Amino acid sequence: MDERLQRTAEAVKSVGCDWAILTSFDSICYALGHAPPIETGVSPFTGGPTTAFVRADGVCGLVAPNVESAAAQASRADEKIIYEGFAYDHRADLVANYTAAITKLRARLGVGGVLGAEPESFPARLAAVFGADQPVDVSQPLRRARATKTAEEKELMRRSAMAAAKGQEAFYESTRPGVTELDVFARVRAAMENFAGERVSVAGDFLSGKERTAGGVGWPVSRIIEADDPLISDLAPRVSGYWGDSCASSLLGEPGEGYLKLFNAAKRALERALEIMRPGIVAADLDGELRRCVGAAGYSYSHHSGHSIGASVHEWPRLTPYESAPLEEGMFIMVEPGAYDPDVGGVRLEWMIEITANGCRPTAPFDHRSSIAALRV
Amino acid sequence: MDERLQRTAEAVKSVGCDWAILTSFDSICYALGHAPPIETGVSPFTGGPTTAFVRADGVCGLVAPNVESAAAQASRADEKIIYEGFAYDHRADLVANYTAAITKLRARLGVGGVLGAEPESFPARLAAVFGADQPVDVSQPLRRARATKTAEEKELMRRSAMAAAKGQEAFYESTRPGVTELDVFARVRAAMENFAGERVSVAGDFLSGKERTAGGVGWPVSRIIEADDPLISDLAPRVSGYWGDSCASSLLGEPGEGYLKLFNAAKRALERALEIMRPGIVAADLDGELRRCVGAAGYSYSHHSGHSIGASVHEWPRLTPYESAPLEEGMFIMVEPGAYDPDVGGVRLEWMIEITANGCRPTAPFDHRSSIAALRV
Repeated sequence: MDERLQRTAEAVKSVGCDWAILTSFDSICYALGHAPPIETGVSPFTGGPTTAFVRADGVCGLVAPNVESAAAQASRADEKIIYEGFAYDHRADLVANYTAAITKLRARLGVGGVLGAEPESFPARLAAVFGADQPVDVSQPLRRARATKTAEEKELMRRSAMAAAKGQEAFYESTRPGVTELDVFARVRAAMENFAGERVSVAGDFLSGKERTAGGVGWPVSRIIEADDPLISDLAPRVSGYWGDSCASSLLGEPGEGYLKLFNAAKRALERALEIMRPGIVAADLDGELRRCVGAAGYSYSHHSGHSIGASVHEWPRLTPYESAPLEEGMFIMVEPGAYDPDVGGVRLEWMIEITANGCRPTAPFDHRSSIAALRV
Repeated sequence: MDERLQRTAEAVKSVGCDWAILTSFDSICYALGHAPPIETGVSPFTGGPTTAFVRADGVCGLVAPNVESAAAQASRADEKIIYEGFAYDHRADLVANYTAAITKLRARLGVGGVLGAEPESFPARLAAVFGADQPVDVSQPLRRARATKTAEEKELMRRSAMAAAKGQEAFYESTRPGVTELDVFARVRAAMENFAGERVSVAGDFLSGKERTAGGVGWPVSRIIEADDPLISDLAPRVSGYWGDSCASSLLGEPGEGYLKLFNAAKRALERALEIMRPGIVAADLDGELRRCVGAAGYSYSHHSGHSIGASVHEWPRLTPYESAPLEEGMFIMVEPGAYDPDVGGVRLEWMIEITANGCRPTAPFDHRSSIAALRV
């Protein structure tokens, strides 16, 4: 049995459930390896969310619409029911087809007893089928089960991190005065997609200029990049259902003292993380240390210091002032301290860092460069 | 009152409901103009779906997570409650925050009486709050209310169609031997995104070579495009919450007799559509006529002949053998006949066509060219 399925089953069992009904993309991807594309939103050819059943011993099944058939068939589910969502030669009743598939799989697997679910996405149609108005919330134990990565996942994380690194290389290569943020973002995306061999969904931020980078958050727009612009390229590509993440910041030209001060503040905090991250360090303590580093240079950042990552782009634990969990071997943690100054711009530097037995190591690290291609300016 | 909100309210009233609870992106975009980005999937910082309440007289409200705050504030909702989904300096209980916001807005607006909902996406949490296990299904009347476009929507449809046309121009311009499908797709996307001034979600297909185009469906991959490849570029960009669509097919080089036969079969069917589309023509009859056109040349296609489009990429009515609805003035219909031959490849030609008082006209039509840049090969 795949270790992710086993961990999911154990999490289900740990809260006293006989079965869990999973309805979030990331939980289904984790447990069963079913990872359909997400970037065009909810398909109009579905009658409800793609749904997985996992028994406390790991027996499992999947209900998916025919538009997800290929991904569903490739999944680890013991039983799969593909219902008709898309048809062109006759009318398909989507909700009825979805509900019939659920009812059929419920009977085939014998789903019953104490039920668990994910309340963020648990549909009323399922509550009605199962007579389960108040299923047990399995979200927290599922999140915790995912915090350290299995051997298979470590490979997937490296591949996603590598995709992000390819994107950052393209960012350094293709940024020049006179092109738009969206032009650079297209090159960046092409580099990541060519590496992955498929379209990839991309979260993150892409910002140029003093004002936008000082704000720290936002998707690329048609602003024309100019010489001496500060830039933030925060790229989180989803490859084969697993997310990478990364943030590079750089100045297009010769950076002045003000920008270097910002850049070095974030850089020092990231380097500090590499010095102190190891099993046992408490997330809040790491967060506090990085904020102190940046604070010592006279700056601060109003976002988390980082987060775990995997089948979802933000996973538990996060590096925040309130998180009392210690880091463990096998976690992959995004670390992203920043420094922002409205008179200069913003810098955020991020790597994916794997917690090892005795310390940590960056995953597919790319260069953090304070200056881009000054000669081209 | 915006005419879309008014139509939504009338649809709610038409099925005897006092209030509708909307939980799908497209219904919320249509009624309230709330159109957050979709392409990175469901945010991990939400406690349930973004939710709108619409009363039978058009009074309305919206519950959205703080990560959607800007889009929510720009919406037409009378009352907005933004709940905390993302926080970094303290723990946010997402499901509790979502439920509290729902409860608060319910009280503020006085939501009650006969309730309608969209069963594909109606969550158990809402059913529990409202004690509404079996709300009235308002999906069908909402779909029908959206079939003809309002004046504001016509502008949005033209803009989305124009974005698609910019993408197709880039397809003709940037396709050449030696680059990958993903390289061309990146250029195409950059053209659409620069036109829109923002990132756009893109549905559709991008295919090169005999085998892939003959299959007719699929996202771009890292296949290297070669001279004499047939290509299909089906581009559906979402701009400001409204979808465009389009399909161009072309051969990279000098097309032979076999390819021209395919191309002309699809072209003739598309031209036939322009001749006969007008208010009153039944969707199934139009579908049948296009299939006959392609069939007369010895080919067929195993997909719909087209579909309406708007806040969702596929809307009612569709051009299928079973759809008995007549077309009406103000509808925007995608028409996409195809012709496929495993020995030659595939061709699908698509335009957005607006139904006018006495006939029809294509919206932002781009050239359909059987050959791309033969000189560059």
